[in-house]
Amino acid sequence: MTGPIVVINPNSNQAVTDGLEQALAAFRCGVGIDCVTLSEGPFGIESQYHVEQVALPLAALVKSRADASAFVIACYSDPGLDLCRATATVPVFGIQESGVLTALARGDRFGVLAIAEASIPRHLRYLRRMGVIDRLAGERALNMSVDESARGEGTFDRLVEVGHALISDGADVLILGCAGMARHRAALEAKLHRPVIDPAQAAVAMALGAVLNG
Amino acid sequence: MTGPIVVINPNSNQAVTDGLEQALAAFRCGVGIDCVTLSEGPFGIESQYHVEQVALPLAALVKSRADASAFVIACYSDPGLDLCRATATVPVFGIQESGVLTALARGDRFGVLAIAEASIPRHLRYLRRMGVIDRLAGERALNMSVDESARGEGTFDRLVEVGHALISDGADVLILGCAGMARHRAALEAKLHRPVIDPAQAAVAMALGAVLNG
Amino acid sequence: MTGPIVVINPNSNQAVTDGLEQALAAFRCGVGIDCVTLSEGPFGIESQYHVEQVALPLAALVKSRADASAFVIACYSDPGLDLCRATATVPVFGIQESGVLTALARGDRFGVLAIAEASIPRHLRYLRRMGVIDRLAGERALNMSVDESARGEGTFDRLVEVGHALISDGADVLILGCAGMARHRAALEAKLHRPVIDPAQAAVAMALGAVLNG
Amino acid sequence: MTGPIVVINPNSNQAVTDGLEQALAAFRCGVGIDCVTLSEGPFGIESQYHVEQVALPLAALVKSRADASAFVIACYSDPGLDLCRATATVPVFGIQESGVLTALARGDRFGVLAIAEASIPRHLRYLRRMGVIDRLAGERALNMSVDESARGEGTFDRLVEVGHALISDGADVLILGCAGMARHRAALEAKLHRPVIDPAQAAVAMALGAVLNG
Amino acid sequence: MTGPIVVINPNSNQAVTDGLEQALAAFRCGVGIDCVTLSEGPFGIESQYHVEQVALPLAALVKSRADASAFVIACYSDPGLDLCRATATVPVFGIQESGVLTALARGDRFGVLAIAEASIPRHLRYLRRMGVIDRLAGERALNMSVDESARGEGTFDRLVEVGHALISDGADVLILGCAGMARHRAALEAKLHRPVIDPAQAAVAMALGAVLNG
Amino acid sequence: MTGPIVVINPNSNQAVTDGLEQALAAFRCGVGIDCVTLSEGPFGIESQYHVEQVALPLAALVKSRADASAFVIACYSDPGLDLCRATATVPVFGIQESGVLTALARGDRFGVLAIAEASIPRHLRYLRRMGVIDRLAGERALNMSVDESARGEGTFDRLVEVGHALISDGADVLILGCAGMARHRAALEAKLHRPVIDPAQAAVAMALGAVLNG
Repeated sequence: MTGPIVVINPNSNQAVTDGLEQALAAFRCGVGIDCVTLSEGPFGIESQYHVEQVALPLAALVKSRADASAFVIACYSDPGLDLCRATATVPVFGIQESGVLTALARGDRFGVLAIAEASIPRHLRYLRRMGVIDRLAGERALNMSVDESARGEGTFDRLVEVGHALISDGADVLILGCAGMARHRAALEAKLHRPVIDPAQAAVAMALGAVLNG
Repeated sequence: MTGPIVVINPNSNQAVTDGLEQALAAFRCGVGIDCVTLSEGPFGIESQYHVEQVALPLAALVKSRADASAFVIACYSDPGLDLCRATATVPVFGIQESGVLTALARGDRFGVLAIAEASIPRHLRYLRRMGVIDRLAGERALNMSVDESARGEGTFDRLVEVGHALISDGADVLILGCAGMARHRAALEAKLHRPVIDPAQAAVAMALGAVLNG
Repeated sequence: MTGPIVVINPNSNQAVTDGLEQALAAFRCGVGIDCVTLSEGPFGIESQYHVEQVALPLAALVKSRADASAFVIACYSDPGLDLCRATATVPVFGIQESGVLTALARGDRFGVLAIAEASIPRHLRYLRRMGVIDRLAGERALNMSVDESARGEGTFDRLVEVGHALISDGADVLILGCAGMARHRAALEAKLHRPVIDPAQAAVAMALGAVLNG
Repeated sequence: MTGPIVVINPNSNQAVTDGLEQALAAFRCGVGIDCVTLSEGPFGIESQYHVEQVALPLAALVKSRADASAFVIACYSDPGLDLCRATATVPVFGIQESGVLTALARGDRFGVLAIAEASIPRHLRYLRRMGVIDRLAGERALNMSVDESARGEGTFDRLVEVGHALISDGADVLILGCAGMARHRAALEAKLHRPVIDPAQAAVAMALGAVLNG
Repeated sequence: MTGPIVVINPNSNQAVTDGLEQALAAFRCGVGIDCVTLSEGPFGIESQYHVEQVALPLAALVKSRADASAFVIACYSDPGLDLCRATATVPVFGIQESGVLTALARGDRFGVLAIAEASIPRHLRYLRRMGVIDRLAGERALNMSVDESARGEGTFDRLVEVGHALISDGADVLILGCAGMARHRAALEAKLHRPVIDPAQAAVAMALGAVLNG
Repeated sequence: MTGPIVVINPNSNQAVTDGLEQALAAFRCGVGIDCVTLSEGPFGIESQYHVEQVALPLAALVKSRADASAFVIACYSDPGLDLCRATATVPVFGIQESGVLTALARGDRFGVLAIAEASIPRHLRYLRRMGVIDRLAGERALNMSVDESARGEGTFDRLVEVGHALISDGADVLILGCAGMARHRAALEAKLHRPVIDPAQAAVAMALGAVLNG
């Protein structure tokens, strides 16, 4: 029997994991989806230190789940992705990578709604590493904490505002640059008249592709 | 209720459609998958003329299926993709585009197993258009007809041979450059010790991602 | 004796063909230039549907003109270009491709004066496919119909306005993104103090190069 | 009355200028073509020193020909091109630049038949500067002097041999990387079944485009 | 004994050479640094003509200094760099090239403070030739003469103003686009809170690396 | 008084640190150079796990050395570079990054002599991230352990052999892809007649540039 897709929330904020459960519920088909919290993770991954801090614990978790058919690292910085891939014997997906690749199938130039200004240079380096920077229209920050963005009232209005700015930059598809904003996806798409990609959903869909292809 | 993902085989070779049925069976989860044959299509899409010839019929078919939640154009040349996207109100996926994007999540540089030499320049143009050419290790042809490759005995041996050549070119992930070779995917992956992507499965997984994200 | 360069207007607006006659008159040297209208074409090529619709008729026309020494497809979307090349035994030039390549010999970064907003993503995909996107300063739309732009009074003023915006984007050479604006070329060049490329003239010059090199 | 296109041979080898006369004879239509020798030039331009040495004399010659409607610098290193452009009030074309741009309209990936190994890095830098390196299949040297290649018996056989190697590299269009090989163009094209571009003819065709567009 | 690094000011403005002496004083360690003025140079290098004019004299100077362990061409246009490299038997560094490469180790995207608008297209061509254009955030001009910028009172205020604009463009490291502004480096860095690269210091550091690696 | 440049060997092999001491001795000018061993490091950094394992300890060491004027991370994988940069208040250099940037000032296309096959995809990702992949001629592995390569007899012969292969790939400058091979640099350069870059020396030279520019 095929094992579950294990979706790891690398921060220790259980509300984010719960949000993932909800966002990914519909994808439980033929194969289970386990959403787990990395207990060693910081409350939010908001700095380069946070990104690096979780790499080894993520790899340990990956190693311990020999039952998994695939893994998803559910943080937009794709922390520990290279190491988890070197560790696992099954496919591992990062949500930034999957979100961007999925956006490339939905529009010509993509825009990213980042949580914080500070992460944008890190993301740009990553897009160059991916070799897809010619398709970027722009990346703009909400300037909220991960926790705020997951709970806050004003989040949707801010998403609409920044989304419009990205459309002016030339984006015809948008990516939510965070694991915890899936509940805004459909409404934002309706409001902006452009596809909006939730990166965790994109990664789980790719994981399904790798698992159901038997 | 969510409508089916409609997978269109743009050639009129029913054996290819039957192969798609089989390759995509496991992906029928939560949402239906209709594999249909474009009756106006040529027996195989093997030239630029064939590619262009099916664009309008594909768009007409897309228009007629108002029940679909997403479309997949299941020919590696992605015929009529731009037009079907302009026609449909739901997402449309091409299997070359989806196969390549999926490969980018499974390895650093990809190799493509094309059916025929003559299609390689067309594919290279497409990869440049996608903005991902820096990730290409190489594309090499089996030099078989679509029909042969779908039925022929020697196909697997030829896939292994060309696969090894692509690995020597630097590929660490391979793409089957045709809609009709899914039944060789798992065995080829086992033989070459590298991920092998079936592009129709990749496209349907992406379509699931777009449909189940409600 | 060398046959004529056959310039095909893929839309059925005879005024556009007449404009081509005039714009290309000076290029009739050593070899004839036949400007013909594709009778099956729509009145203007303003959508992806129009682009695809003319591909097969264009190839049929190309096939029927065995006397031609070269062909020019005179619509800025370069419809049917790949197919006409696969069909013809003589060189075939698209005016977008030729216009852009010619601009690269006249300035460092080019700007495109598109007719309609909606065609810009299609053009950007094409520039990436050409592998020359690093030389693009910007593309901006006049937001007129092809017919309006060919006849309208306000066209020149709008060209000047959008031209200035492109110069601000960094363009030091401009391309008229339409087959029907040649009569504004010289005046626009004088007004903006930057080379202005008429793409049909650029394509015919390249065709001359291919025909007179015997 | 429109002045002539002035084609400057930057080396002092009159045989090269005579070859240009012959290669460009058919392009004398509507406008004159003056082929002139730069008397200050070296006998052949075969080193970086030769390239730089002719820049100022070329600009002086350009300045002295106020009657010209356009200039062509007829050496594949495009010596002094930036300076001549800064000096002239009419368009100036380099034959490497024009040859490469023209090849991009005739095939998907181009190959260059260079005279000497030593010039290849200089050409690669130039292709990167042009922003078109993704279209290069390869550049390979004949390893002859300019003078030898212009006169030598074995030149054609060597062109065929190196041309085949470039086709193996993936080239579907070839460029003669020298001003003095036009007389082999047609025969080489016939032999290799691929378009072969003479760069001086390509540049003069572009110059015609700029001059006849009035 | 290791010979000196010879730093050549290609213009004849002795004040610029004196400024280089001062800016490079701290780098005299283990090896001497000779700052010399190219007597044949123009008072400032402000046009393409100036750039080309100094190439041969620079190479002659390089040839005459057989004692040098390395050369630095201290003008931001890197005049004569290719020729000096072909002439010298020791490493030759250009300050634009070295400044840009050094900036790439200090930030993700760089901004350039050019002296004059007119030199920006020349610099962009050079960055494409270097193959690093994807790292450019922007280049903006002070619009001063070299002499003014070296002496003028308002220079620092203008540097701050243009520096802020480049930071808005996305630059997180800045390059002084001129050999004569080193005395503003530290203050500008302190004011803008971003690394500021003096290109002559960057080139001399690279030269030290090539000389002290014995 | 200016503090020392702290060069950190991230593996715990003291012989490598001793080799760095020797290779960098000549660079002690005006400012001290402290070569230190990361005691928490593995004996050699030969896997993705080793790379990630040292990131936090490296940052801790960086934090503890408030006296440093700059840091160099002396392992060719540039482990922990982003984190050390986020942690330090002074410039931090990685030797892969510095080695590659320095090579770009010494030749047109560079070749890398990697220690192990397995690290090549990691390096290619890094070169894409740097945005300089168009300048890569090739990377080839010695297929030795770090320890072997530092001590082994056959190392030089293998360097020559792989160096020749890279020159055939088109490299005109070579980079030693390891911190521990500086003692072969000069001999290899003499043998291959091409510049050979030791990446630790390159990084220290860049660090000098950042420190002595006061």
